[in-house]
Amino acid sequence: MKEVRIGLLGAGTVGSQVARILSEQNRELSERAGANLVLSGVAVRDVSKTREGIDPALITDDIERVIQEADLVIELMGGMEPARSAMLAALNQGKTVVTGNKAVLAAHGPELNEAAEAHDASLYFEAAVAGAVPVVYGLRESLAGDRINQVLGIVNGTTNFILDQMTTQGWSYEQALKVAQDLGYAEADPSADVEGHDAAAKCAILASLAFHTRVSIADVPTKGITDITAEDIEQAREAGYAVKLLAKAQRVLVDGVEQIALGVEPTLVPLTHPLAGINGPYNAIVLETEFAGRLMFYGAGAGGAPTASAVLSDVVAGAGHIAHGGHAPRESVYADLPICEPGKVLSSLQVRLEVSQQIGALAQVVQAYQEGGVSVASVRQPPVGDQEDQATLIISTHRATKNQHDDILAVLAKSPLVHKIASVMSVEEG
Amino acid sequence: MKEVRIGLLGAGTVGSQVARILSEQNRELSERAGANLVLSGVAVRDVSKTREGIDPALITDDIERVIQEADLVIELMGGMEPARSAMLAALNQGKTVVTGNKAVLAAHGPELNEAAEAHDASLYFEAAVAGAVPVVYGLRESLAGDRINQVLGIVNGTTNFILDQMTTQGWSYEQALKVAQDLGYAEADPSADVEGHDAAAKCAILASLAFHTRVSIADVPTKGITDITAEDIEQAREAGYAVKLLAKAQRVLVDGVEQIALGVEPTLVPLTHPLAGINGPYNAIVLETEFAGRLMFYGAGAGGAPTASAVLSDVVAGAGHIAHGGHAPRESVYADLPICEPGKVLSSLQVRLEVSQQIGALAQVVQAYQEGGVSVASVRQPPVGDQEDQATLIISTHRATKNQHDDILAVLAKSPLVHKIASVMSVEEG
Repeated sequence: MKEVRIGLLGAGTVGSQVARILSEQNRELSERAGANLVLSGVAVRDVSKTREGIDPALITDDIERVIQEADLVIELMGGMEPARSAMLAALNQGKTVVTGNKAVLAAHGPELNEAAEAHDASLYFEAAVAGAVPVVYGLRESLAGDRINQVLGIVNGTTNFILDQMTTQGWSYEQALKVAQDLGYAEADPSADVEGHDAAAKCAILASLAFHTRVSIADVPTKGITDITAEDIEQAREAGYAVKLLAKAQRVLVDGVEQIALGVEPTLVPLTHPLAGINGPYNAIVLETEFAGRLMFYGAGAGGAPTASAVLSDVVAGAGHIAHGGHAPRESVYADLPICEPGKVLSSLQVRLEVSQQIGALAQVVQAYQEGGVSVASVRQPPVGDQEDQATLIISTHRATKNQHDDILAVLAKSPLVHKIASVMSVEEG
Repeated sequence: MKEVRIGLLGAGTVGSQVARILSEQNRELSERAGANLVLSGVAVRDVSKTREGIDPALITDDIERVIQEADLVIELMGGMEPARSAMLAALNQGKTVVTGNKAVLAAHGPELNEAAEAHDASLYFEAAVAGAVPVVYGLRESLAGDRINQVLGIVNGTTNFILDQMTTQGWSYEQALKVAQDLGYAEADPSADVEGHDAAAKCAILASLAFHTRVSIADVPTKGITDITAEDIEQAREAGYAVKLLAKAQRVLVDGVEQIALGVEPTLVPLTHPLAGINGPYNAIVLETEFAGRLMFYGAGAGGAPTASAVLSDVVAGAGHIAHGGHAPRESVYADLPICEPGKVLSSLQVRLEVSQQIGALAQVVQAYQEGGVSVASVRQPPVGDQEDQATLIISTHRATKNQHDDILAVLAKSPLVHKIASVMSVEEG
């Protein structure tokens, strides 16, 4: 069998698992690739640290040398630089690159893809979205014969775990975050997860693949889960919904033009929807397609071993192509659809208001909706405790544009009868 | 763009949809393949029939000519012959073959794969298992970096629909079958579905891919759903289980040797298991993997459009390789694991017995288990109506080999205190 030399950049949680499995399962992985897989170098920042299971002779801090000596480069350093430059260098030398770096892909995907195409190189990135759940393969290859209309995903395990704990334990956001940090599901600085940026990067990658159009993280309006309260979750449950942080990408027709509507936001999902049942740190992606209908992919979205599994699948595919011809699928951007202006994206909202008990609060709210041209699907007034001067109104709207919703919320915010707009959440139906 | 000529063999439910989508979405599919897809011929049995949406000039009954004039052949005739010979002929001419024919693959897969390899041809078969659910891609490519330990699937929509109707409507098997036939979910002769043969073919294909070993339909012990009663389903539900026809393939260690245990049979699945919630004609496959943990694929398992979606994804992949180099993944059989003797496969059973009320029936049953060396997990005696001379015993066992279970059932069948072995069902835990 032909030998394929593998350079590993980064030996953290995922990288060390990749090195371990590559060694332990070498015969099996090599058989599947049809090529003898050889780890030829490991670049790390701190060469003084002992790396269990990795031959010390392979360890270096010389990224360039590891790239030069390899046929296939695995980039698992994370962060923007030097990851981006290293991948570009490898692709410019015609090497195969396997990465899990969603941040670089969502910001600099086109640059990497162009380098791959120009130098007959290959770029693989299954590990960048939803760990080992093979949704990148799914969209890039196995559904190439279909037309994707919508991608809806729970793609961030940290926030799903937090929302899940808030639901099942009745905890506050802060309590649930603390537990997630203690268990290692959330980082000390959790902002990339809880503010939705991680999900937004994945949303951009999925949308690019699904709609054959370049989508960058900057195109994705993003709202995290930091404002979600235990009360939001409880009231959602009473109304038959689960609160999930969803990455959404949808083919829409706006002003007669086919466009892509994007967003990451906490969303009310009916308890009967398959995504409502995805608990803990799991990920799931639901694809609505023209011919195959609804498909769902489900599995562990993070963690060293699952992510290593995705990386090694790409390594087997990439090494197979190096040994036997062919390359990774090329960037497919022929459709080049415009990104829908966020203000024009349609959605149904559920709005919770704290209003004055005074007669007329309900009437005024309903009037604001009527004047704003947004149809109200239902208004509920849950029983309140001893606060005699205050009531809660929960308004569910039909679909309207974000601009319309925002205008009405601005009117309500100014009304003396509305004490507080306690919560505004998008609703996913069906 | 290079032109890729496509020959279609068969224009039934799936074939006509393939022709329609290939025409309607030609630009998109061609862009994704990076090749101009051209339908060059359609072979049908009855050329006198009008085929809407297919150019009559393309229609012929000359299979050989359609193959000769094509670069890529789509086989959707179904059945053994002439499908098998046609695929072999195409592969022997170095053509790419896309098929959904699980029967031929499960019986003659090695022959087709060898022809593909010998003539540098390609064989694709995503549509053969679970319609558009991309589990063939999943096992063949996207999970090549992992080690599959178990495949558990609902891979036959007809039987899942029937069991589902029996569960939700309380119908008998016969009633539910009738409705399935009326709705077009079951054929006039439903035996391939209800006796489990369709699921067994898919089980063999999935096991071959998962375990890198040749597995034929003849290796799969198969039991259908024709004996399942409404009472079985009701009692399962009371005990916290759903009854599902499962295709199972598992890596096991028997007598110190790693082997593959196979089977298709009605199985009690805990209501908390993801497969318990798969309703109607849907398919789902759960993979237990070494590194990625549990993954699930879910979607429409049959029907013209979903199956056409799978076929066209293979067409896009195959045409891409024809135009730009590379080929379908080759048959991977390096592991060559032995198939576990059916009698040595371990399982937990739930056995329902109708026994004499006479004191001693319970004792005798328990004794039979003790003497047979099978540990009893629980015995339940549901309340009965007015039959004073008869009681029901439901025995749940711990894991034991099929031979052990069979020996005990033979002893029980001979006991004068056991009137009837009403039901024997495998139990899937966790």
